[in-house]
Amino acid sequence: MIEAPIGVFDSGVGGLTVLRALLAELPHEEFIYLGDTARLPYGTKSATTVARYAATAAAALARRGLKCLVVACNTASASSLPAMRDHLAGVPIVGVIEPGAQAACEASVSGRIAVIATEGTVNGRAYQEAILRRRSDARVLAFAAQLFVALAEEGLVSGPIALEVARHYLAQLATPSPDAPDTLVLGCTHFPMLLEVIRAAVGERMRIVDSAATTAREVRQRMESARLARRAGASKVHFLASDGAERFARVGSRFLARPIAAADVEIIDL
Amino acid sequence: MIEAPIGVFDSGVGGLTVLRALLAELPHEEFIYLGDTARLPYGTKSATTVARYAATAAAALARRGLKCLVVACNTASASSLPAMRDHLAGVPIVGVIEPGAQAACEASVSGRIAVIATEGTVNGRAYQEAILRRRSDARVLAFAAQLFVALAEEGLVSGPIALEVARHYLAQLATPSPDAPDTLVLGCTHFPMLLEVIRAAVGERMRIVDSAATTAREVRQRMESARLARRAGASKVHFLASDGAERFARVGSRFLARPIAAADVEIIDL
Repeated sequence: MIEAPIGVFDSGVGGLTVLRALLAELPHEEFIYLGDTARLPYGTKSATTVARYAATAAAALARRGLKCLVVACNTASASSLPAMRDHLAGVPIVGVIEPGAQAACEASVSGRIAVIATEGTVNGRAYQEAILRRRSDARVLAFAAQLFVALAEEGLVSGPIALEVARHYLAQLATPSPDAPDTLVLGCTHFPMLLEVIRAAVGERMRIVDSAATTAREVRQRMESARLARRAGASKVHFLASDGAERFARVGSRFLARPIAAADVEIIDL
Repeated sequence: MIEAPIGVFDSGVGGLTVLRALLAELPHEEFIYLGDTARLPYGTKSATTVARYAATAAAALARRGLKCLVVACNTASASSLPAMRDHLAGVPIVGVIEPGAQAACEASVSGRIAVIATEGTVNGRAYQEAILRRRSDARVLAFAAQLFVALAEEGLVSGPIALEVARHYLAQLATPSPDAPDTLVLGCTHFPMLLEVIRAAVGERMRIVDSAATTAREVRQRMESARLARRAGASKVHFLASDGAERFARVGSRFLARPIAAADVEIIDL
């Protein structure tokens, strides 16, 4: 079982920021990354549809014999973990919402926490509820920052356009006020790509929580406590996508921060 | 047959700019608009996947007994008309590419024509080929302007961000040169929403061709010459979507420039 791969699921290439963090935390593992590129984005779709898509992805990954599944997609983490669990009996599933909420609660002094995410994640209220379960005194301000997704995919992550868009969404957080949040959760896997302009828009004092890093730590702890972590050997990654190997490789290379060859992306039908 | 509805198909709400033009050209018709919102966007997906999706949409629309199908989606028009025709024996199908290419060839004096579209439409080369079939002397410069889609959906169609993005993509067209295009085709249904900033970025002398208007004229002519155009009565529109009635109504109202109620959007499974 220790030799089994860890699955990483996302609607597209965004989850590669989570895979990148996982490769840093767990450098000896084999990963199978699945991006549902034929049906992305999940962030603007209804919870019912996302759960249906995520369940078919879980079924496809289950056939590969995983020891753990990381749901790197915030939208699917918010709405679809139960639907995915039905296909993965006994395999631990780690979403990005709970670790992100935990890290935000630890980082915030005032309990005033902002969450930026896709429309679907915000409307599903999963971050809001996960934070309030841990800190009932918290005040959560959650809103969508949909254009960040397109900017990250276009590679427009710095420069005047990215900065203007960051200010457009985040100016409200930069205004000094006693009610202003002291912590900002990046509740979409695309958003860490824009960290520099997000930081510039919110100022130096804001604590920024990136759920990729906190999720990777959670996975490492769970693998270690279950004695399922490999202790030696090089990491391996197998890429699966439901459409568009060329685009997956081109855009994904930026998200993973290492080159992906289109020939190494296996296209599967979901 | 004259009483039968006209179908309008798009991957999402973008095609509502085409429906708007159709309502102006054909004010007595009944329209059935189908947005495949569960599987959008088509613009970044492979031609094979788009053809498969478009075929299931055509099959669903065929069951409603159409007298004509307008494929308002540029990506589907570029790659999927044959796949859709299989489900619509004898029903005329009008895509947006051929009327747009025709209008561009008529508008251009120099034969130098720029086309902005989604990645899928550009890579499929359908506009390039449709223009060259009509004017073999034409020089076509086609490129993707992917962020315009996200801006239009967010309603960010004017102001500094929209203008910066327009300049980012179009500055190359505004530079005076003997080789500069004199005509710009808006090869994506979302782009007419940004006409004001596109115009500001390319200057007053550029001829801008919007395929929504030219497609609507083509449909009117075909309906009239086949004696299938209704001559009296109010227009009616029935909205179908494969996901998210609330979002379809909210974002779609801007594209159609008239209010759509979420309760009037019928969700169908494709």
